[in-house]
Amino acid sequence: MNGPARITPHASSKAAVLDVIRAAGTISRVGLINATGLTGATISISVRKLLDEGLVVETGRAESTGGKRRVLLQLNHNSRYAVGVHLDHGRITYVLTNLGGAVVARITRPGAGVREPSVIVQRMADEVSTLVTRVGVEPSRVLGIGLVSPGPLGASTGMALAPPAMRQWEDYPVDRELSAATDLPVVLDNDATAAALGEHWSGGMGSSSTSAALYMGTGIGAGIVIGGITYRGTSGNAGEIGHTCVDVMGPECWCGARGCVEALAGPGAVVAAARADQALARLVGTSRSHHSLAADFAAVSRAARRGEPQATAILERSARYVAVAARTLANVMDVDFLVLTGPSFAIAGSIYLPIVREELDRGFFARGVHEVDVRLSHTAATAPAIGAAAMVLQSELVPLHAAQRLPENLTGDEPALVSPPSA
Amino acid sequence: MNGPARITPHASSKAAVLDVIRAAGTISRVGLINATGLTGATISISVRKLLDEGLVVETGRAESTGGKRRVLLQLNHNSRYAVGVHLDHGRITYVLTNLGGAVVARITRPGAGVREPSVIVQRMADEVSTLVTRVGVEPSRVLGIGLVSPGPLGASTGMALAPPAMRQWEDYPVDRELSAATDLPVVLDNDATAAALGEHWSGGMGSSSTSAALYMGTGIGAGIVIGGITYRGTSGNAGEIGHTCVDVMGPECWCGARGCVEALAGPGAVVAAARADQALARLVGTSRSHHSLAADFAAVSRAARRGEPQATAILERSARYVAVAARTLANVMDVDFLVLTGPSFAIAGSIYLPIVREELDRGFFARGVHEVDVRLSHTAATAPAIGAAAMVLQSELVPLHAAQRLPENLTGDEPALVSPPSA
Repeated sequence: MNGPARITPHASSKAAVLDVIRAAGTISRVGLINATGLTGATISISVRKLLDEGLVVETGRAESTGGKRRVLLQLNHNSRYAVGVHLDHGRITYVLTNLGGAVVARITRPGAGVREPSVIVQRMADEVSTLVTRVGVEPSRVLGIGLVSPGPLGASTGMALAPPAMRQWEDYPVDRELSAATDLPVVLDNDATAAALGEHWSGGMGSSSTSAALYMGTGIGAGIVIGGITYRGTSGNAGEIGHTCVDVMGPECWCGARGCVEALAGPGAVVAAARADQALARLVGTSRSHHSLAADFAAVSRAARRGEPQATAILERSARYVAVAARTLANVMDVDFLVLTGPSFAIAGSIYLPIVREELDRGFFARGVHEVDVRLSHTAATAPAIGAAAMVLQSELVPLHAAQRLPENLTGDEPALVSPPSA
Repeated sequence: MNGPARITPHASSKAAVLDVIRAAGTISRVGLINATGLTGATISISVRKLLDEGLVVETGRAESTGGKRRVLLQLNHNSRYAVGVHLDHGRITYVLTNLGGAVVARITRPGAGVREPSVIVQRMADEVSTLVTRVGVEPSRVLGIGLVSPGPLGASTGMALAPPAMRQWEDYPVDRELSAATDLPVVLDNDATAAALGEHWSGGMGSSSTSAALYMGTGIGAGIVIGGITYRGTSGNAGEIGHTCVDVMGPECWCGARGCVEALAGPGAVVAAARADQALARLVGTSRSHHSLAADFAAVSRAARRGEPQATAILERSARYVAVAARTLANVMDVDFLVLTGPSFAIAGSIYLPIVREELDRGFFARGVHEVDVRLSHTAATAPAIGAAAMVLQSELVPLHAAQRLPENLTGDEPALVSPPSA
């Protein structure tokens, strides 16, 4: 199955029912009718299929409300699994989730570094295999692999514009190659978008219906979740807040523009500032050494936590720019919930959080109407990988309204589910 | 009818059918079944109601495709009307549109100035009456009034935070008061959001499904249209691009933040720069005079069109900041179409257009994947008023998916349709 994951109306009823069951935990057939607006007959047929396929089980009976106690349905969590892979320069994170999105296994491995993509793909295939067999899951129950990475998504495949550290991945058909190497379908997306989805699936977005995840890994990006669906824009490249201009006279960024938040304040800028500081230079590698950006950023963060004033000053300066980016995101999208996620916030979030909150309290345009709740993620390091797995599950679970004439850029342009050559 | 415009499922089928007929121009019942996914019975009932209410008429027959030639349906354009009012400091624009959104009358009147809101509301009521009777439309056919203005929308009513020139409107319940004065329902929204909707209804967004309107009137804002629906965010305050920071050390803005694009480059900043210039100061009023900002901005624009180098330089400097704001909007929303609209672009758009285009060509993050088509509006001066009328029509026409569990912040939080006290 190549190309966008289009769902036939018939399959979407089933998928809609499955997603409502997932979200509800347990629900009766009558509850499904009320929640979906589908007819009793359609619900009956869909539930029958799901029970036959083993995706759903009947469990207990609801409290009596006077009539017959209704049979409850719930996901058969261990009937299917999905693999999520977050591919970054400094680290590759793998998670295995069950049908409900719960993480059942997790591996962290060295990053792609400067090795050739084909070599890394082979390693990734082995690591996915390890992940699955270690938990004892039947490989046939694995639905597919979600693979997320930095940079814009291309029209065809792969990274259309890769950050400098990953230049060798530009235009490399990683989804096709990984699919062939693992014999599993692969869906590709952007790390910040996936992080937002992962936060949503992990319950990290609260009950907000218009929320965003501000993501800091190697770079800075954002994902936007509206009514539980990630907003993707024309080409899946929405949320590029790291490349918004906060200084028209600022330095040039690798993306081609100038004054980008990422260039002024991302992890790379933090590490460069540390390198230029007498006291801190010994903590970070030289730009020609083999230190990874992630390790250097972590070193600066640890120094700040130890109370080193220079390290604190550098991170607080970064935080003031990141706060302005958060305010831009809030003003453009009018969100009421913002979660700080990603490996860099996992390490240094405690410094960023109060500064982001203060900027929004003071300057968010609609602050007289509602506030923006800003939180640190509880799953900051794994949010992109969890979101990547969720993308695979969603291709099975696609909600009813996504199958109808919802604007494509909400559902959709669904990342293309690329299948192994034999499929 | 107070509160959000909630539609019962039954009414939404009718509304859905009406909107599809509007968009199609002419369509058969079979075409409606295919377009809406509703059953033949539901289509039959909805069409019968619409014919009985006189909103739709049967007209001619489709080309034969082998079988019986199908009867075509179309809007009865003159069966209903909507009033759109764009309330601004320097000017109040009124349009009357028919059921299909076509403008049948238009009046431009002096702005609200510094007069008391209650006085202005009386005047607006008279002017709406003039608008309707001049065209000879039966008042009973007017569905209601859409009223749009700058500034954030409050949770209850009115402007929660007004720009300095309109401070006396802050928290004034203008929708309730205008409704009482005109005996018509009134719906309130933001001028930039309405401009985007007006552009969409006027065909100014091309065939793009993810488009934005960059609006410059007194201030700078944006409206975002996704699949034909305006994106509204948590509280209807999405798209506040004029209050994004392009200079962390920049001047304070009336909104409370600093370095806002609007403060650096909006019409107020352009006029202030002209006032400070020896050659141009004579063109614009002093800040204590009765000149309106709109008139002063127009004077600077005319000077630039005459080739005055200082005027051109001032506008081009403004354009460079506005271009950065456009790039921010494009990077966050991943749009592929951007229209420049509003009274200020109506006058000076020819200077802004090439500079905005160049910034996006050079720096839009996903430019390797798709371009952003930037155009000047053909209806720049009236887009907010047309959008305001469209808001009223949409409350009658609300598309099917808006009535279903589409995230509220797309449909929705529908601006509250406030009715006259007697309703």
